[in-house]
This record gives sequence, structure tokens and C-alpha cells, in this order.
Amino acid sequence: MEDFYSKLRKTDQAVLQKLKEWARKIIENAEKERRVYMELPVRSFSNVYFDEEQGLIQLGDRMARREFLNVGHAKKFLQTALVASAIKDLVEEGITTSLRDVYYRIKHTIPGTKENTVDDQRESDKAIEDLETMLGFVREQLHVFSKGGKGKLAGPIEIEEIVPDPDGGRPRVVETDGTNVGMGGWAIPPITEPERVQIKRVDADFVLVVEKDAVWTRFHEDRFWDKYNCIIVTGSGQPDRPTRRLVHRLHYEFKLPVYVMTDADPWGWYIYSVYKQGSINLSYLSPTLATPDARFMGLTISDYHEFKFGKEVKIKLNDQDRKRLKEMRRYPWFKHKEWIREFDLMEKEGFKMELEATSSKYFRYITKEYTPAKLEAKAFLP
Amino acid sequence: MEDFYSKLRKTDQAVLQKLKEWARKIIENAEKERRVYMELPVRSFSNVYFDEEQGLIQLGDRMARREFLNVGHAKKFLQTALVASAIKDLVEEGITTSLRDVYYRIKHTIPGTKENTVDDQRESDKAIEDLETMLGFVREQLHVFSKGGKGKLAGPIEIEEIVPDPDGGRPRVVETDGTNVGMGGWAIPPITEPERVQIKRVDADFVLVVEKDAVWTRFHEDRFWDKYNCIIVTGSGQPDRPTRRLVHRLHYEFKLPVYVMTDADPWGWYIYSVYKQGSINLSYLSPTLATPDARFMGLTISDYHEFKFGKEVKIKLNDQDRKRLKEMRRYPWFKHKEWIREFDLMEKEGFKMELEATSSKYFRYITKEYTPAKLEAKAFLP
Repeated sequence: MEDFYSKLRKTDQAVLQKLKEWARKIIENAEKERRVYMELPVRSFSNVYFDEEQGLIQLGDRMARREFLNVGHAKKFLQTALVASAIKDLVEEGITTSLRDVYYRIKHTIPGTKENTVDDQRESDKAIEDLETMLGFVREQLHVFSKGGKGKLAGPIEIEEIVPDPDGGRPRVVETDGTNVGMGGWAIPPITEPERVQIKRVDADFVLVVEKDAVWTRFHEDRFWDKYNCIIVTGSGQPDRPTRRLVHRLHYEFKLPVYVMTDADPWGWYIYSVYKQGSINLSYLSPTLATPDARFMGLTISDYHEFKFGKEVKIKLNDQDRKRLKEMRRYPWFKHKEWIREFDLMEKEGFKMELEATSSKYFRYITKEYTPAKLEAKAFLP
Repeated sequence: MEDFYSKLRKTDQAVLQKLKEWARKIIENAEKERRVYMELPVRSFSNVYFDEEQGLIQLGDRMARREFLNVGHAKKFLQTALVASAIKDLVEEGITTSLRDVYYRIKHTIPGTKENTVDDQRESDKAIEDLETMLGFVREQLHVFSKGGKGKLAGPIEIEEIVPDPDGGRPRVVETDGTNVGMGGWAIPPITEPERVQIKRVDADFVLVVEKDAVWTRFHEDRFWDKYNCIIVTGSGQPDRPTRRLVHRLHYEFKLPVYVMTDADPWGWYIYSVYKQGSINLSYLSPTLATPDARFMGLTISDYHEFKFGKEVKIKLNDQDRKRLKEMRRYPWFKHKEWIREFDLMEKEGFKMELEATSSKYFRYITKEYTPAKLEAKAFLP
């Protein structure tokens, strides 16, 4: 345990050191060049590209300057500095907090004016993202999470979580055996960086990610993880960062193949691509959050025919679906003949379908027949 | 453990017997009166009242007939019968499922027509609600949940969850010690009926319900449950049924006072009233889901002044907020002078405020000063 905790201490020290260096650099530049500025990577769409080789959405190397004495930059400069100071407090106190709390922490009316330091949480969020790229640590290492975490997990895995004592007492280690969790599964915590969550042992052959938590409950209740020796994970819809991070870690630390199951609709398929390639907004995080080797295991419109579902499970595409489908065709990571075929099929046949529709056969069809058949046939999409 | 599991078996048998009696009654009536019908309590607003004495939204005793040979009733009759049959399957197989799955399970095109048995999940949901009132068992006892569950809990509590083996094997019991859970807490499962979730031991003085999961994480990280000897619960916003059921059970089975913390806005205050009185839609469930003795512990507009928050944390009321506030004034359970005072104050001063705004002082202000002061002063609203 000492070893484990020393990891967190080391990261914290490295963050504090980096913060100091970053601040010192601003001061040095100011003294040398008589200009107060920080340099940061450009995060706009123009500096984001799809790295074919790695299969990742990545950030390019263009840098920009944020100058204190530039009317267009001054406020952002101030916001970044205030957030940096809040992060220093968090790390020194050994506590974590949410993005919303950081927003309120730095929100103040600037004395002698009616101007607030921040007026919208997006401003402090952006400042944190800037700091992530400048410091080279992810937000979670800066002790900031988004929400309380909504992912769930079960299966043959042993996890150790470190819970520091915020009053400086002895930190605790909480152990979880993923085969001995209740029907709610193990609640994936708001931060799953290796300094806080250690995966002690995994005895599984693959990771099965299920888009929706209600469907995940079917897999959990049927002990699918036991029968097929796998880890089952859900992000309860669009996955949060700690869930994606954990899936990424299971793949890279334990070489587990990752299979993702979503609804057969453009939104479900996009969720697959978030697990797999990362998102455009957080391109600089792809190397820690994404799992490019992930494979899609269904649901597709081809499945509708192959598994002979009744026409009553069809849901007619609406205009938004069709629009989204068009956008998806443009993403380079969907430019595979298998996906183009599915996009064509969905557009032509004009319907989408949900995972729960498998219950139209019988309640356990998805765990008894559908998923086993897909696994057996290795019927994955790229 | 045998004892515990036999509880679930007994409930299941009682459900099956009740289902059979219910079906037999329809047949008997048909033979006697030559009319095929079921009798069910009226659930519309006209049959819902606020029970002042019990402090609960309750269902009146008006009954209605649903007739098979009535054009306006026939489809609903069919839907209720189909859902009853699906529930029989679930109970007999010893598995649970979601509302969405039940919808797909009973959705079929009626042979020889273009008519579907159900076209919208609301129809099957209503059929389940009808069965709950007719059979006298809650939906969870009929093996149906809504979603995967989003509540969280931590503190001095020992819980046993029974996990039946869906293949007829030996059921398992999963034990959780609420003082030894990770940062995600204990994931409140989709069903928390006593047949499935047993509260073995509670060593706490009260239950603290926190509206938002990110704020709950602050309380959990600061081990508030240890320092103030309480159980901390969050429903992650609008609470689901299993979370409300558990809060209810902690109050009634262990005589724990329940204090609820929400944002100072009409939506947060309404969430308090859902924990406390139940909701209008599910009035017939109030006796098992609501906790009329729950007390409100903040946030209020009075707190804004008393704790001297800066004006930058104010969020201006919008038209929707004002409209909602007007509606809330009409609810009988908010007709207390303390609440009327807060409604007046909010309307007059024209702002609302979030729990996270307490971070404008410092990140742990809420656990170090605000909440301890409220507890000390017993500053609760009715």
C-alpha cells in the first residue's frame, strides 16, 4: 500500500513543481522580453487531425501566445492564472473537486468594476483544458473531475482504490472484487488515474462495453462475465472520462480486446467511436482516453435481418438521425467499407433499432443467443 | 442467508398466486356476468389527494372498470393482459428487466391487422402501474425496474444484497460495508425491496441526502459520514425509485431522521418534496417510497444572507423559475410559513443559488462550516 500511495504523492509533487515552473516561466519572459504571456497549444479544429497510423484524433503542434496586455487575451489570461492557483490549493490540500466548484471558486467581481472574473462555467472549463495541455497532466491529475461518475463494472477483476484522508491522516485503500459486487456493480469513481485506482489482477479474456445501464444489468444478472470470462462495463450512455480511461487501461495494461455494444442508431455508433477514437473536443486526451483497437459488436441493421427480428421493433429514422448519419460518413475513422455498408443500409431501409428490442424474442435473448453468436462468429466491425 | 432468500421466494410465490387469482376473477366475472372486465383504482388527478395527517400524497378509493368489449378499453385491456403474462415469465424465471424491455417484449403486430399491441412505451408503463395497484405489489416486486440505478451511498451501514442465480443455481449474497467503499460509493441497485436488499446494521444518527452527486463526492471525500456519524445518500438529481425506497427504509426500519440538501431553486426544492411526500404521478406508491418526516436542510435564500455569500454566486431567476415557484406555492405540502417566507424571498430578490456556490468561500466550506452550522442550529425547514 505504501508503494501505491507514494505514486499519488509523486504525481502531486510533479504537478506542483510543473505549476511553479510554468509560473516562473511567465515571470522570466516578462523580465526578459517585457511581455507577460503564456504559450499554449492551439486546440481549435484547425489544429486537430486524425492520426491514421495510431487511429487517434490528435492535437497538432501549433502553439499560440496568450498575452496579459492584449485586450482580447487579458481576461483569459486572468482566468487561467486563477484556475492554476485553485489547482495548487487542491493538490496541496489533497482534495478533489468538480468543474462546477472550480468555476465558483474563481468567480469574483473584480474590485472597482462590475466585471466578473468568469461569467460562465465554460470559461473556467476552457482554462482547465488549457492548463492540461500546458502542464502535461490530465485534469484528474490536477484533482478536478466532472461529475460523480456514472459508469459501472463487474467481472473477474480486483481493484484497489486509494482514498487519501483529507485531514492528513493515514490514507485508506479500498479493495473491490468485481465478481462480488451487488446488482449496481462497482461504481466507477470520478477519477480512475493509475495513481488512485490500481488494477491488481484481471482474469478475463475480453472487455464488453454495453452502451446502456439497463442492458448492462441484463448481462450482470445473467452473470455473463462468468460464463464468457469477461469484464462488463457500461458508461450509462455517453461515457464520462473515468469510464473511458478505465476501458483504455484494461486494454493497454492487460492486453484485453475491447468490444462495444450500442443501439443501431447514429448516436449509439458515435458513442462507440468515442470509446475508440476519442472526441474532437478532447483530442489532446486521445492518447490516454481512447482505445483505437476497440471493435464494434452490434447492433446493426444487418443484424436485424440476420437475427430475423420482427418489423415492430423498427423505429423510423427522423430528420436529425439522417443529418447525423451524413455527418458520420465524413469522419475518417468511419471510412471503412463495413461501416459504409451499414450507413447505406440504414439510410435505404430508413429505420434504427435499440438493444432492448432483442427482448421481443425473449428477455434473455441478448445474453443467451445474440451476443454469443456475435462472439462465436467474431462478427465485429472496425 | 437461507432465511433471506426464502423471503424473495415467498414474495415471488405471493405474486404468482395473486396474478392467478386476478386472472381467475376476470374469467369468473365473464362466466357470471357475461362481461370480460378488470376492476382497477382510478389513478387520475381527480382521485389523488394530500393526506394531511400522514403527510402523503395518496390515491383515493374510486374504482373503474376496464372492459374488453368496449372500443375505448379493448386495447388497454389487451396491454394489461400482455404485461401480466410477461411478469409471470419474469417471476417464474427468477430474472428482472427494465420497463423498456417489457415494452418490446409485448410489442407485436396483431395478426391480420396493421395494429400493434403497443406503439409507445408509455402504454406498457401505464399497464404496469395498473397491475401494481390491482395486485398490491410494487413494480420492483414484479421484477421490473426503470434504469440501472444512479443513486449512491456511504457511511456506517452494512448491507446484504441477494443475487439469485438466473440458471437456477445457488443464489449469492453480496455484503457491503458502507465505510469501506471507493470514491464512487455503493451503487444503489435497480431494486431495493427488502426481499433483495437487507440492511443488516446501521450505526448512524441520521441520513443526509445530497441532491447532486458531485457535491455528495465532497461529503464522501471529507468522510463527513465518519465525523458526523451519518449515512450520506445522493440520487444524482431527481431520485429514482430505488434511492427513495432506501431512504424511506432507513427512516422506518432504523428510526433515522432524514435531512435533505438541494440547490436553492424551485427544482431543487421540488426534489426535496419528492423524497418527502412522493410525486403526484406515483401517488399510490407514497406509502412505500415517501418519507414525510424528512426535513430540508438548505440551501435557501435566507442562507445566502446568513452565511454572507458574495453577490457573484447569484443566478438570476428566469421565467420558468418564476412559473415553477408559483406552482409550488399551490402544493399543500409547501403551505408552511417557513416555506412561504422562502418563496417570497426568492421572488422578491430574484435569484437562485447552487450548492456548489459554497465553494466560492473555499472548497470544503460546505462540509467544514455550512452543514455543521445548520446541524448545530437544527435549522431545518418542514
